[in-house]
This record gives sequence, structure tokens and C-alpha cells, in this order.
Amino acid sequence: MARGTIIPIGGAEEKVSDAAILRRFVEICGDDAHIVIIPTASRLEDTGDRYCELFKELGVAEATSINFVERKDCSDEEHLAVLERAEGVFLTGGNQLRLSTTLGGTPVAELLRRRYFNDRLHVAGTSAGAAFLPEHMIAGGAEGGIPRADKVTLAPGLGLTPWAIIDQHFRQRDRMGRLLAALAYNPRPCGIGLDEDTAAVIFPDDTFEVVGSGGITVIDPSEIEYTSMDSSRADYPVTIIGARVHILTDGDVYDIHKHKATPSIRLSRT
Amino acid sequence: MARGTIIPIGGAEEKVSDAAILRRFVEICGDDAHIVIIPTASRLEDTGDRYCELFKELGVAEATSINFVERKDCSDEEHLAVLERAEGVFLTGGNQLRLSTTLGGTPVAELLRRRYFNDRLHVAGTSAGAAFLPEHMIAGGAEGGIPRADKVTLAPGLGLTPWAIIDQHFRQRDRMGRLLAALAYNPRPCGIGLDEDTAAVIFPDDTFEVVGSGGITVIDPSEIEYTSMDSSRADYPVTIIGARVHILTDGDVYDIHKHKATPSIRLSRT
Repeated sequence: MARGTIIPIGGAEEKVSDAAILRRFVEICGDDAHIVIIPTASRLEDTGDRYCELFKELGVAEATSINFVERKDCSDEEHLAVLERAEGVFLTGGNQLRLSTTLGGTPVAELLRRRYFNDRLHVAGTSAGAAFLPEHMIAGGAEGGIPRADKVTLAPGLGLTPWAIIDQHFRQRDRMGRLLAALAYNPRPCGIGLDEDTAAVIFPDDTFEVVGSGGITVIDPSEIEYTSMDSSRADYPVTIIGARVHILTDGDVYDIHKHKATPSIRLSRT
Repeated sequence: MARGTIIPIGGAEEKVSDAAILRRFVEICGDDAHIVIIPTASRLEDTGDRYCELFKELGVAEATSINFVERKDCSDEEHLAVLERAEGVFLTGGNQLRLSTTLGGTPVAELLRRRYFNDRLHVAGTSAGAAFLPEHMIAGGAEGGIPRADKVTLAPGLGLTPWAIIDQHFRQRDRMGRLLAALAYNPRPCGIGLDEDTAAVIFPDDTFEVVGSGGITVIDPSEIEYTSMDSSRADYPVTIIGARVHILTDGDVYDIHKHKATPSIRLSRT
């Protein structure tokens, strides 16, 4: 029983000059890693192959793209055998509902959960792939800073963690309102708003480190005293009292269970 | 480590003449049981006291109502101590968003989860109380038989099971469409549509038995071949191919993981 690492990325990660996030994912997967890319969220035909080439340039032993197009593809024994021996899985961007409607409830989703929780499988996802990772997935929503019930649509995701709700393209698409709305329904999970080219490397102990050129907006709901979500109209602003917000950047660390943020400068690294 | 029993009730359970569902809950909690009623979902002042009297008439040793009105009430040490020694907890009807916004992420919700999973705490809920029990809660929605994305709003619930999404007043309020819409997002959990005066007694092995005068509509998503939720407009019907539906009545049993329904007449009872 050993959990892997989850790496949600805010989309538009730098792929060529620096590629810090993808490089970090490859490092975590280890030497001689086999990485499987799942481009199901994307409508572009070459997404999987493109990531295969990128990961090979970054030095992985093997990179394979498996495009699960229909639900029946997710019971294919050969595909499952390839996933069974991967060290890392990478979910591309696109539409997260393509992921949940195609993979949800199939042997592929079951295998990813089982191997993540028990077998140190590392799972990264960018944009739609990031949104899909947790138990509660932001399926869609509207831009803007103020939470309203109709600003966010939640649906079951892959189920790798119940402790975080992840949003992406965060500052670029002005998504503070919809992430706050998601938390206002039930202030249990923490909110992780990922800017583009920015990732949270979530370790098995539910602490995460920021990697990348942007910021992560963390919304800690643990001290929320009140939300009006039970009584507000769908198209009206929601009152939220007591949310704590952190803006974290490269190298900073957050402990989800202890609700504690630490700037990189205060971390003693050995 | 021993899980308890979860008993979602479709609302309007018979309270006086027969009271089969409440009686069953009391039986499960055992002799000399202490039952705690949480009337937080309700706007009526006497809801908690009314259930206290009902449970006492049904023979429980002790029945206590704790009305958590504000989030800060959910950290009260005395309240937590009472919950710590209960054999059963009963969540009344009302508005499930009152439950998720008041209890969600607080020590009370944490205690209920911990004691349900490890300490055989039995948790029943009627109507809004039933909707709140699972990981994915139906927060609201519209009536009608055909699924549409805008027919259902999902939010994180109490988190006692990720394997079922529960709807209530099911036939009475024509909720087939919204339950199907919930499953179309991610065909992983099974759908449990509870008629009024009807309950699912979900045992620790994730089989459940039907108790009561109505029916339970079970939607088994395990053979769903396709849903169009990733591409359909919010106000358009969603295509779903391959859902299996069972209508179960008093005494019938369903195994959530094996996707198998057994009519009561085929069960050998000893």
C-alpha cells in the first residue's frame, strides 16, 4: 500500500525551452520510466503523439499514447496490460467531460485508482486532465470573481483525492468566483486554482509543492464560518465568511490537512 | 475497523401506525441504543423533538436532538461528546444544502465519517438527510423524465459512500431525469431513486435491502456504452445508451458492486 503522486497542471505548460513541470513529472516517475499518455480529452488527432515525443526528449525509457475514444475501449485487455506496467500516466487537456463520460466507471478508471492508491502510480493531468483528477470535478462554469450557484457545475471525477477541488487557467480565465462557489456548497475540500504553466505536485502525505512560472491560488475553507449557498438564488452572489486565501509560487509548499502554507525560503532543503 | 449501516429514506416515512423503516433503524442500532437526531436541514423548530419522541416510543434507551444551526456549533465539545457515544444518528428532512453548508468540513462531519467507517456507527437520513449521505449529493434540480445537464446540481455531500447517488421523493416528484443526468456525467456510482416511505438499508458490504411501502428505482451504469454529456447543450436532452434499471420493493436486495438484484422471493432467509 503506497500512494503515488498527483500532478495537476493549469494548462499551457511550457513544453520546449524549460519544460520544468514535465521534467519534474519525469523525474518523479524515475529512471527507465514508462509513461502512458491518455489524450481522450482532446479533439486534436496528434495530441498523444506530440506528448510521446516530448517525454522521449525528456529521457523517459518508453512513452505510449492510448486514445480511449469509446467506453468499450476502456475494457480492452491489451490497453489495460500497458497501463498495468506504467510508472506514470499523463492526461492531456481538452474537455474534462470527455474524460468522465468515456473513462468514468470503466476498468481503466478502476485501474488508475487502484494503482495510484496501492502501487505508487504517478498521475499527471493538464487543464481538463487536471480538473478530472479529484473526486469532485469542476465540469464547467462561468468567469468572474464573485461566487454564484450557477457559476459552477460539479460532477464526479476520477476520484484520486476527496481533499481538493482543482480549477485551471485560473488567473487567465478569471475563475475565482466559480472555485469559491464550488467550496460554498460544502466547505470540506480545499480549492486549488492553477494558473497556466503552473502545477501542484501533490505527494502521498497530501502536501503539495508549486512548480512553474505562475501562481496557485489556494482557498482554505477550514475556517469558513458561514456560506449562504443554502438560501441564495442561483443567479445571485453567495456570501462566504472566513475563507483563507494563499497565493503560492514556485517552490512554496502547502499542507492540505494542516491548512498550512510555507514559502520556499523557509523550507530547509537538504 | 468495522463499517456501520447507512439508511437513506425517500421522505414522508410512516411514523405512527406501522413505522417499519424507523423500527428497522432502531433494531439495527441494537438494544439500549442511544440515537442522536440532527434536525439541521429543517426549518421547523419541533422537528428534532418530534423524532426524539418517535424513537422513544419505538423503544430506544435514549434519543437526543442536537440542532447544529451555525458552523461554529459543529466544534462544540459537548455536542461532539454526545455524538461520540451514539449508536445511531438520524438526519431529518428539509434542505440538504443546510446540511452541507453547516456541517461540511467541520468536526461533526469528520466524526460521523470516522465512526461510520471504523466504529459501526449507523447513519439514517430522510429526504434531504438521505441526499446528503453519499460523497456526491444531489443539491437540487428540476422535475421530468428526460436527463438534461441543467436538470441536476451536484455538490460534495457527507461522504459515507462514493458508490451511490441518492435521490428522494422519487416517483412522487418525477425525478428520473435528474438522476439519469447525474449518472451521465460519470457513469461510476449507481443511482438509487427512493420513493416516499421507502428506504435502502445499505450494509457494510455495499448490498442493500429495500424496506417500506414504495419502490426503489436502481440505475446501474456499469453497462452504459455512451453518454452525450460531454457535447450536449445544458438545456437539451442527453443521450444515454445501455443503462440498466431495476424497480425493487420491500425485501428485495441489490448488490452495488456485483450489479445484481435479487427479488425477496429468491432469498433464502433463515
